[in-house]
This record gives sequence, structure tokens and C-alpha cells, in this order.
Amino acid sequence: MAATNRDQRRAAHVTRSLRGVNRFMTHSGWAQRRDRRGVMDFALGNPQDMPMPEITQALKFWADPLTRDWFAYKTSDSCAQIVAARSLRERTGVPFESEDIAMTNGAFGALTAGIKLVTLPGDEVLFNLPPWFCYEALIEDAGAVPVKVNVQPEDFDLDIAAIAEAISPRTRLVILNTPHNPTGRIYDRRSLQELASVLEEASRRNGRRIYLLSDEVYARIVFDGNRAVSPAEVYDHTLVVYSWSKQLLIPGQRIGYLAVHPNMPEREELREEVVAIQLASGYAFPNALLQHALGDLDRLSINVDHLQRKRDRMVGALREIGYEVHSPQATFYLLPKSPIADDQFFSEMLAERDVFVVPGTLVEYPGYFRISLTASDDMIERSLPHFEAVYRLSRLQESMIA
Amino acid sequence: MAATNRDQRRAAHVTRSLRGVNRFMTHSGWAQRRDRRGVMDFALGNPQDMPMPEITQALKFWADPLTRDWFAYKTSDSCAQIVAARSLRERTGVPFESEDIAMTNGAFGALTAGIKLVTLPGDEVLFNLPPWFCYEALIEDAGAVPVKVNVQPEDFDLDIAAIAEAISPRTRLVILNTPHNPTGRIYDRRSLQELASVLEEASRRNGRRIYLLSDEVYARIVFDGNRAVSPAEVYDHTLVVYSWSKQLLIPGQRIGYLAVHPNMPEREELREEVVAIQLASGYAFPNALLQHALGDLDRLSINVDHLQRKRDRMVGALREIGYEVHSPQATFYLLPKSPIADDQFFSEMLAERDVFVVPGTLVEYPGYFRISLTASDDMIERSLPHFEAVYRLSRLQESMIA
Repeated sequence: MAATNRDQRRAAHVTRSLRGVNRFMTHSGWAQRRDRRGVMDFALGNPQDMPMPEITQALKFWADPLTRDWFAYKTSDSCAQIVAARSLRERTGVPFESEDIAMTNGAFGALTAGIKLVTLPGDEVLFNLPPWFCYEALIEDAGAVPVKVNVQPEDFDLDIAAIAEAISPRTRLVILNTPHNPTGRIYDRRSLQELASVLEEASRRNGRRIYLLSDEVYARIVFDGNRAVSPAEVYDHTLVVYSWSKQLLIPGQRIGYLAVHPNMPEREELREEVVAIQLASGYAFPNALLQHALGDLDRLSINVDHLQRKRDRMVGALREIGYEVHSPQATFYLLPKSPIADDQFFSEMLAERDVFVVPGTLVEYPGYFRISLTASDDMIERSLPHFEAVYRLSRLQESMIA
Repeated sequence: MAATNRDQRRAAHVTRSLRGVNRFMTHSGWAQRRDRRGVMDFALGNPQDMPMPEITQALKFWADPLTRDWFAYKTSDSCAQIVAARSLRERTGVPFESEDIAMTNGAFGALTAGIKLVTLPGDEVLFNLPPWFCYEALIEDAGAVPVKVNVQPEDFDLDIAAIAEAISPRTRLVILNTPHNPTGRIYDRRSLQELASVLEEASRRNGRRIYLLSDEVYARIVFDGNRAVSPAEVYDHTLVVYSWSKQLLIPGQRIGYLAVHPNMPEREELREEVVAIQLASGYAFPNALLQHALGDLDRLSINVDHLQRKRDRMVGALREIGYEVHSPQATFYLLPKSPIADDQFFSEMLAERDVFVVPGTLVEYPGYFRISLTASDDMIERSLPHFEAVYRLSRLQESMIA
């Protein structure tokens, strides 16, 4: 009795869905050597250059209190809501109002709030593979049931037929991530319209609305003059998730939002309920300082042109070496094919040379690996000989096995 | 179908347990007039004076990045864990190590993580009435079942016999809040030892451990040279919740922790699982800046002597008017008896005079009302004639009804 029965705790269950990620975080080459000088870190969407000085300036400026309640309990600050709604309106053309915006502690809080807002335990929540690494854990924490659908392997586009087939009478929510991590794909208007028709039809068939939760955290990290169409432009029952963590590359200072579509008939009901959900799920609001600073922060962005140049350099060099790799339309990521089937072994070979990537297996996409372009120019240049050596070594090994 | 069926969403359910609080937040006199000049605000444990300048200094100082990952993804920062563990060791004498500390976004995140760490859906979680206003919602969000036990009405001490009686084979967790909001009671070592015996015995009987979650956010807000004994000093299966929000009076800048008792046999298992729980419940970690600043912040505190003088002034003046009110040992709060049975009506009479308190009904303790001593000296002095007038008016009304 003294020792706990592991099976008697939900913790054990949640840990299972994060086990691969946890092991990577705690036991991989990256975990052990990431802090060393001179490493080439392409693992997470984390900053590898110093933060923009304007961020520190904004934090300092708004740290001076103007009122006695400057650092008092904050839910959604009305000024921050105005900034967020304006920004979302300008980006999508959909007439979001500030009252439609629930300010959150980044995308995590917005996803949690969105999932809990519309699902009951036992409801099915559908999302695409390869996924962002935490969807499944958030869905399970809400007591809902994850259902996974692969994107199309040849071009990473949505597989609408497969989604339609995966929808059941229990489906309550579809999570869409566009631009998509880790494929860098932007789903175009036609695909989104097709999906909207499928959801509309299935909602009618089920006699119960299927919502769409649109994770748009990379909406401003787009290349080649692309624009990422928001699903909110084509489907009224959309909840939009945004976070400034990518735009500013400060995922440790968390601010984002969940937006309820202005054409949703149950809009006002949801507005009120989301506050209770945010309280009940552990205070999923951003800190006061970040909300005060949001007007300044929203005007800032990492240099996307520079990111695009890093994409071109990396894609070109990897292809020259022999890697199969697409050129992403957006996001921080490349998703090349692993030259050998065992992407974890391949990733550890790179890690032994202090080059850190995420093996595809970790995002349920074996045979690939993910590179984050947030790595510095210097890291990119120094890494290329290693990418070449490990490519050749792994091909050699494979030919010996074959 | 277009409109959502309210019963088909958990949101509706969670909202129910927060309905009273929500109504107070959105429709009370306080909600409507709290921002006006000259109001006397005793409602929440919120600052009514300007923040300490040292807080702004610390935020500014630590906003200057020292490394490229200064604002990168942060879970529990090892320096912040060291500060927290040292502080908790010094306060309790229990040999907590930094690895026992999970840094959280204040007490909300720590409570959520603690509840989810040890319970399964359907497990019973016991807490005392009157409670902190959000326990029930956090328990329900975790899928667990709230069980409520009144404290002793005469002196607000723990009712150990009632707790023992309320324990069932499904009881998994007891939440204890000491010093206690809103009664200001510190439970003494003997009471805690009796409780520990009850939990030990019931765990044996049930063949399953009953954990204790100790909410100690007021541990440093104590009067008259008191010390708040931590339940961790007498019961090894204790999880400690702390937040700096009270000590610094900055509940909008959220940092706190959940600490796992160093004598718990399953300590290492829990340490690993709590990270997954924090991710899965929506990133319940504090922001990077606050973790960097914690060494400086932990040395600061609001002026507790001043708070004690406000307590004495307020208790003395209210008693002189005729109110029945105890003198709290700790916390921000007084809990006087409402001079009429209907504490909500009484509170709205005060609110019409721009004096804001929390009616006891809101914290499931009808017939009382809560005063927060975070109000300024000036608010206190200006409020006394109103407390007197409303006392006399309400007594007059009652005598007319009788």
C-alpha cells in the first residue's frame, strides 16, 4: 500500500502519450548535450539567436505600473483583446470583435480551452498526422478521444476523403493546423472549402455540430508572398488559436488567444463559458505584463525573409547531398526523408556530431526527420558537412545490410 | 441543430459551479462600479495600493537576456527550483530538494497539477467549507468528485470527526488550506497530527493511499508572531502548493509551485509525471522572466505589520459598531457575520455606497461576508461610516420584518 499503484493514477496514462517526447527531452543526445558550446540545434522551434531587443524594451516599458491594479488578477485584458481582434480581422477579413477573443497563456491554453469548450468526455477529436507533439495529450486530458488521419504522403496536402471517412457520430471537433507543423504546408482555399462541406454535411447527418479548431500559430511565418487562408474564412463554426510565440520567437513568455467566430449563433454563450473553462483548467490567461505590452509586441516579428533565406540554403544544400526534401511554404520546419528507415538511429548519428534534429517517429511520422530553421546561419553552415557525412555513412550501412 | 445543445457541453457544467462567482464578477455592484474613483474595494485579494517598486525593478533587471534561450520554452527552471526549495525548507524544516519542486503558473496551476497527479476520474476529493472559490471547479475539471466538510462554526478550526466521517473508499485526496482563506485560521500542529492519523488509518482501511494537498499561499502572511505549521511536517504524503501572488500582491504575474514530499516513496515517479501533467493541462508553467527574477522576488514581501495594523483597526471599529467579527491569525481576510441573514442583500447595500465586500453565499458560507485587508488605509477610514450606516439600516429593516 505504501507504494502507489501506478495504474490508479491518470498521470500514468497521460505520460504514455507523451512518453516519446519525454524520453527525447530527458535522454536523447539533444537532452544531454544541447547546452554545450558549439552545438548545432535544429530540434525545437526555439530561438538560437539572441532575442530581438525590442522585446526587452517593451517588457521594460510596460513593467512600470500606471494603475494600482497593474499586476492584479487579469483575465482577458480589454486593450489586449482589441489588439488581438484587429490583428485577426486584418489577417482574415472575418469581422471578429474584441469580445470574441479569449486571451490565453499561448497556444497550449487556447487549445485546452477550445477542446474543453465544445467537447464532452468520450467525444472524438480528429487531427492530422504528422501532428504537433501535444494535441493527443491535451485531448486525453479533456477526456476526449483522439482520432488520427494521415495527410497525403506525396505533397502533405489534406486527405479530405480520409477525414470524411474517419468522422463518426461521436466526432465533435476537428483540429486543423495551417500553416502546418511539421510539413510547412498551407492548405489552400479549395481544400478548406471541401473540408467545410464535409463538416457541414456530417453535422447534419449526426444532428450535432462538428466544430473546427484552427491552430494558426504560424500564420505570419509564410514564404514567397504566400498568405495562409484561415478556415474561419470558409467555416463559421471555427475557433481560431493564435500565439505570439512564433512571430516573436519567445515561447517562454506566453501570450495567445482563442477566438470564437462572429457568425456562430452560440457566440455569446461560448464567450461566457470560456472564462469559466480557463479558470477551471488552471488559470489559462496570460500574465498582466504581456497583455499590457501586446500593442507593442504585435507590431514586431522575427525576420521572415531571413528565415526564407535559411530555408533556401538548407533545402538546396540537403538536396545536393542527396536528401529528399520538399521546400515548405511556411513555418519554421523542413521535413526531409531519413536516408535510412530508422529515423531515430539516424537522428542519434547526427546527435553524436552535436547536430540535433527531431526524429519523425516522435511526431508519429517514421522515416522522416524534422529540422527547425530557427537555427542560426552559423549553425547551418557548420552542420552541412555533418549532414553529408551522416548521409553517406547511413547509406553505406544500409547497403551493407541489404 | 444550428444552435448548440447546452447540455452537450462540459462547459455548461463547469460554469454551474462558478455561476455565483461569475455573476459577482459580471453583474454585482462591484462589477459595475469597481473602476470608479473613490470606491472602497474590499472584495478580492487584489492590490489597492501601487505595486512595490522593487517588483518593477526586478522585472526590468531580468528582462535583459543573458543567453539566447532566455525566453525559450521553459518548464521548471533549475535556478527557480533551487530558490523555491530553499525557501520551503527554511519555512518548514522538511528537507525538500530542488527536484521535488514543479514550478507553476501560480496556485491555480499547482492545484490542477496536484489534483490530476494523484486522482482518477470518479475519485473523491475532500475540502473544507468555506472554501477558496475555485477548488470545486478545478476538481470537476479533473473529473473527480468534490466532497465538502464544514469547519467548526465557533472558532473555524478543523472538524476532524466530520472529515473522518466524510472519508469513503473512493477518497483519494484531501485539500487543506492553512492559513485558511477566508477565516484567517491557522490549523495548529495538534489538529494536523490528528488529521494525519485519520488519513493514515483510512489509507490502511481503503488499501489505497489518501494524499494531502496543502494550499499554503498565505504561509508568509501571518500576524502576532504566529508560524503556520505545514501539513508536510506531520504527513509524508503531502503535496505542497505555494504561490508568490499573496506575498508580493501581484496575482497577475503568476509564479508558484507544487512540491512533492521528500519522504514519499513514489517521489521520483511523481516528479516525472508532473511535467507531463503540466504540459497536458495547458502548459501550467510560469513565464521565463518570472523564473529568472525569482531569486530577487522571493526576498520581497508586502508589509505584513501594516496589514496587521489594518486588521486591528478594522476589527476594532467593526466590533464597536456592533458587528460580530473574529480577529484572524493570518491571511488578508476578515469574515464578519452579516447583521442580517441575507448576506447578498447586505453586501449590495454596501455596494450601493461604493463599499465592496464578498457575500458569504459566494463561498458557500451564508450569513457572513468577507473583507479583504488589501484595501488601502484611506479606503478603510472612509468605509467605516458606511459600515455603520448599513449595519443600523439592516438591523432596523430586520426589526420591522420581525
